[in-house]
Amino acid sequence: MAISFFTYVQDEITQVENLIVSQAEGNDPDISAALRVLLEAGGKRIRPTITLLIGKMLGVPNNKLVTIAAAIEMLHNATLVHDDLIDGSLLRRGMPTLNSQWAPGATVLTGDFIFARAAYLAVESESTRFMKVFAQTLTTIVNGEITQLFANHSITTRADYFHRIYSKTASLFETSATAAGIINLEDEETIEDLRKYGYGIGMAFQIVDDILDFTGEQATVGKPVGSDLRQGLITLPVINFFELNPDNTIVNEIFATNSLNDEYTQKLIDAVRDSPAIHNAFDEACKYIQDGVAGLSNLPDNQEKQALIELAEYIINRKL
Amino acid sequence: MAISFFTYVQDEITQVENLIVSQAEGNDPDISAALRVLLEAGGKRIRPTITLLIGKMLGVPNNKLVTIAAAIEMLHNATLVHDDLIDGSLLRRGMPTLNSQWAPGATVLTGDFIFARAAYLAVESESTRFMKVFAQTLTTIVNGEITQLFANHSITTRADYFHRIYSKTASLFETSATAAGIINLEDEETIEDLRKYGYGIGMAFQIVDDILDFTGEQATVGKPVGSDLRQGLITLPVINFFELNPDNTIVNEIFATNSLNDEYTQKLIDAVRDSPAIHNAFDEACKYIQDGVAGLSNLPDNQEKQALIELAEYIINRKL
Repeated sequence: MAISFFTYVQDEITQVENLIVSQAEGNDPDISAALRVLLEAGGKRIRPTITLLIGKMLGVPNNKLVTIAAAIEMLHNATLVHDDLIDGSLLRRGMPTLNSQWAPGATVLTGDFIFARAAYLAVESESTRFMKVFAQTLTTIVNGEITQLFANHSITTRADYFHRIYSKTASLFETSATAAGIINLEDEETIEDLRKYGYGIGMAFQIVDDILDFTGEQATVGKPVGSDLRQGLITLPVINFFELNPDNTIVNEIFATNSLNDEYTQKLIDAVRDSPAIHNAFDEACKYIQDGVAGLSNLPDNQEKQALIELAEYIINRKL
Repeated sequence: MAISFFTYVQDEITQVENLIVSQAEGNDPDISAALRVLLEAGGKRIRPTITLLIGKMLGVPNNKLVTIAAAIEMLHNATLVHDDLIDGSLLRRGMPTLNSQWAPGATVLTGDFIFARAAYLAVESESTRFMKVFAQTLTTIVNGEITQLFANHSITTRADYFHRIYSKTASLFETSATAAGIINLEDEETIEDLRKYGYGIGMAFQIVDDILDFTGEQATVGKPVGSDLRQGLITLPVINFFELNPDNTIVNEIFATNSLNDEYTQKLIDAVRDSPAIHNAFDEACKYIQDGVAGLSNLPDNQEKQALIELAEYIINRKL
């Protein structure tokens, strides 16, 4: 199935991928191999697609646009490489992770290398403001991961959850959406509208991810159903379940002990899957999508805007 | 003992340390704790000292100078955090490493956080050229570490060795020495002279480190004598020993099998310690120091230049 908003920037995405692979040139051949493995493992390139669509809409020159889109995709990939190592994940989208094949040290350094080259590409934008946003986004993502690591296996409030998914996901979507506006020196109102779009679809993206962790087929998602909860991570469907079922025995037990108990994990996963908690979470994701798309309302109607709206709809309708 | 070149920029070094600690503000309190542990673990702050001395010499405004010096020291610390984790080092300068106290995941992320803030401070220089040099230096360091990791336990040639210590150490010394010149828009000849200084003392610094690994007291260096060789890393004293003793039984065995054998490691360490290989390596370090100091010859004579020459002499005379 051709998805029009992806095909619209297909050539540019190929240029982004080529630029990413070329970052290994002149360096250790193992890095080149690692970059190819990462790119061949797929991924929807949704972040650079957002940057490219908005950049084309604003008339940003192609070479600059491809450079910042590659910087953003590399930043994303570097964080995935370290995340998968830390979580001990062996598969991502059903493909072996780098850490499943390489020693931990080599995996840490490959992530570092990708950070270094992402920073280099960000500098090539020649926009100090974009570089600051870029470094700040990396700070936000890493800080969020550290908080998550230390808070593992403890009860997550609704506010904690939204704060966490902002750090983890929506912050980089914001940067993907504002990047072209920033380097094109758009007015602050336009940049704020673009930020709203990125924020809304980024928050929705992570909520849908967290829903798919419960509802997705293991073969499609590439990890066991309820894997977040098994790792001690409480997401929106679980928070909704707690709120809908304050008198449930398992919920009471969890709040009484203030921690997740392995014994109850499977029962809780089954209960969440059969509960309206999932549907409610989906409604919340839809609300974020609406708010995000509303951010585009001041922009002129054109093909790119249409593609950005389709992309937003794809985010809540995807199965992977 | 007061070392004059350090005391000359003591106030600025305190400002650099305060700026580093302040990078954790508004983020997870564990990061703040980690940054304090890293700073309290000491370290000579030799890289920011170089940047500060040269910046004062060139008349770079204090706030900009402190910012780039902090960026450089943070980049150095981030690489140490990941290195110690990868090597499984429990002590550095006799103090517990971060990875000896924290889980691997938290250690990886703390290193990432420090990279992120180092990049942010580099951007605050508002010099695109400095930012590029900064990102390129990180690339060089990480690439060198990856090569070292994959080449571990194999024979190192003299050319491999010098290439490796350039990547690992001298590249960041070059950046420390050129940083102030770059942001102060000095002419290319001056920047090249400063690069020569950084390159020479950086190469010497690593050679002396590699000598101290054989000659230092365990209590002072904070790790067992010959620890590089025990980890499969061949350094200049060993290369010199090979060249001086082509007919030695151990040397022949190592070259015949093209690998280091644990059985011979202790014997080789003892043999290197008792050999002129150490003295020859020291002569090579002195040569690099001379070449480095020669880089300063076109610069006007002043207190800062005198301090930079003393700093160069300290590098070959230090015991730690």
